[in-house]
Amino acid sequence: MKTIQGYQTIIHEQLQLLDLEWKDNGLYDPIKYILSLGGKRLRPVLTLMASDCFEGQLEDAYRPALGIELFHNFTLLQDDIMDEAPLRRGKPSTHIIYGESGTILSGDVMFSKAFSLVTSCKDQHLRAVMDLFNETAIEVCEGQHMDMAFENRDDVSIGEYIEMIRLKTAVIVGCALKLGAILAKASKEESQAIYDYGVNLGIAFQIQDDILDVFGDSKHFGKQVGGDIISNKKTYLLLKALEEANSKQEAALNYWLAETDFDARQKVDAITTIFSQLHIKEQAEKVMHQYYDKAIHALENLRIKEENKTYLRQFARMLMDRIQ
Amino acid sequence: MKTIQGYQTIIHEQLQLLDLEWKDNGLYDPIKYILSLGGKRLRPVLTLMASDCFEGQLEDAYRPALGIELFHNFTLLQDDIMDEAPLRRGKPSTHIIYGESGTILSGDVMFSKAFSLVTSCKDQHLRAVMDLFNETAIEVCEGQHMDMAFENRDDVSIGEYIEMIRLKTAVIVGCALKLGAILAKASKEESQAIYDYGVNLGIAFQIQDDILDVFGDSKHFGKQVGGDIISNKKTYLLLKALEEANSKQEAALNYWLAETDFDARQKVDAITTIFSQLHIKEQAEKVMHQYYDKAIHALENLRIKEENKTYLRQFARMLMDRIQ
Repeated sequence: MKTIQGYQTIIHEQLQLLDLEWKDNGLYDPIKYILSLGGKRLRPVLTLMASDCFEGQLEDAYRPALGIELFHNFTLLQDDIMDEAPLRRGKPSTHIIYGESGTILSGDVMFSKAFSLVTSCKDQHLRAVMDLFNETAIEVCEGQHMDMAFENRDDVSIGEYIEMIRLKTAVIVGCALKLGAILAKASKEESQAIYDYGVNLGIAFQIQDDILDVFGDSKHFGKQVGGDIISNKKTYLLLKALEEANSKQEAALNYWLAETDFDARQKVDAITTIFSQLHIKEQAEKVMHQYYDKAIHALENLRIKEENKTYLRQFARMLMDRIQ
Repeated sequence: MKTIQGYQTIIHEQLQLLDLEWKDNGLYDPIKYILSLGGKRLRPVLTLMASDCFEGQLEDAYRPALGIELFHNFTLLQDDIMDEAPLRRGKPSTHIIYGESGTILSGDVMFSKAFSLVTSCKDQHLRAVMDLFNETAIEVCEGQHMDMAFENRDDVSIGEYIEMIRLKTAVIVGCALKLGAILAKASKEESQAIYDYGVNLGIAFQIQDDILDVFGDSKHFGKQVGGDIISNKKTYLLLKALEEANSKQEAALNYWLAETDFDARQKVDAITTIFSQLHIKEQAEKVMHQYYDKAIHALENLRIKEENKTYLRQFARMLMDRIQ
């Protein structure tokens, strides 16, 4: 097994080679641009990691891994159009530079190229790889759809919320890992086990993200603390608070959710105070740990080297050890 | 072989069955809507037709054919967003009803479902089917990109124009036919021959469309005559006229292309007059016939029943016998 940085370096190099393959016309410029904005490349790293865990030919996983990264960036590019977001990683969003129509069209090519890369595999794996990726792509859309629909609903349950983050965020993590496993000829059961590891880890990670958005240290977290509160985002924390609030707390929450003209600091403080009264952070952490434990538990059934299991456990630990 | 109507009936029934498979949530509504607007379903009909020509199991081609229709409608849905078109087949466009963000997202699902349907085939055909569809999808995007780029260019050559319509319109016709051939276990050479038949027919059809837009009878053609002229669309006719115009004709053409405040009838008459002076219609018809002949010629190498060849020849004839 390589270090995370080792896998990142491979992805970085392979992305540069891929860039050279693309036609030098305007259709590919938005793709090159969004990929140039960087990112941790964690999803393709997971594909390589899984391939190594099952002792596959690492090179066989290079192009499929790039397909996963391309698909992920395609979803970012489209999210920015749908959210009318002006910035992505501190730079102008793709559609701001290339226009909306051009970006939509380049997104289609990006999606097609992702398909083509993911399925750059031996024919014996083609059906499994294609079905996995296709199902994941549809699920990610369904998750995004749920997230958008939540904005206009006031009866979102916690179960629905977990399902939304599973679809929108977690299945692609599971898919990236399962892809590496399939390419390395892992059995169906083992491919499923590493998928479960990924999905549960993804859910835990997203719940932690919700927690950090309110209780994190902005210096380390890298985002504005309270952003979710300011935008009325229906996170685990808010939904749990609405579920457990007494009538006075519920009235206060609803007041802040309805108020359009407010002082951001005041709103964040008021809602955070209610979260604290209701011990929401502790409850969210408990659920987060449940999913984390499920992820670790899924590793038990893998028939891989013990040191590779340790690697996956340590990776999960590292991912969750963001500074709170 | 069945009649065209016979194949259309199958597609119609299969689309209704497909509709029932989709989740009853907002994500699938735009897909159901655009498919409900109708259309001749010619592309999936071609897949069934090719399957029958090569004496394949027709049922094996049902779902792949639906995938082709879904992909085609996905491109229509996106074109309408990009062109900000308010109407599609006389009804409000999808994004007018479901909003732009929702329609973009449903488009992604539609594209994924198209992939899934097209590749609903025996594993032995999977690689060939997937590569064909993926390549076609990318080419259609490249064609659409060229078309959009042409709007801002005044140096488009006729060669580039033919390449644009090949990519944007014709390759999907070839793809639909080749798909049916592959599923019916046609050889590589035969699959390629029926693809060439489709692509050349597609190009001939599009050039005929350009001719009919100016010289057609609006009652029979079903579109406003002169629409391309009014919108300065760089068709074969306009590009040829610009190429052959004397300095006075060129000045007149450029005047009308630059003028923003004009009487539509007057502009159409003026440009049509120049087309007539330069015998543009006759030249366009000549090129159209060249592609038509290439299409028919491609059939020669097929080792299929003579009556099936006759069927394909008659189909081509019928397609081109729109009333001028």
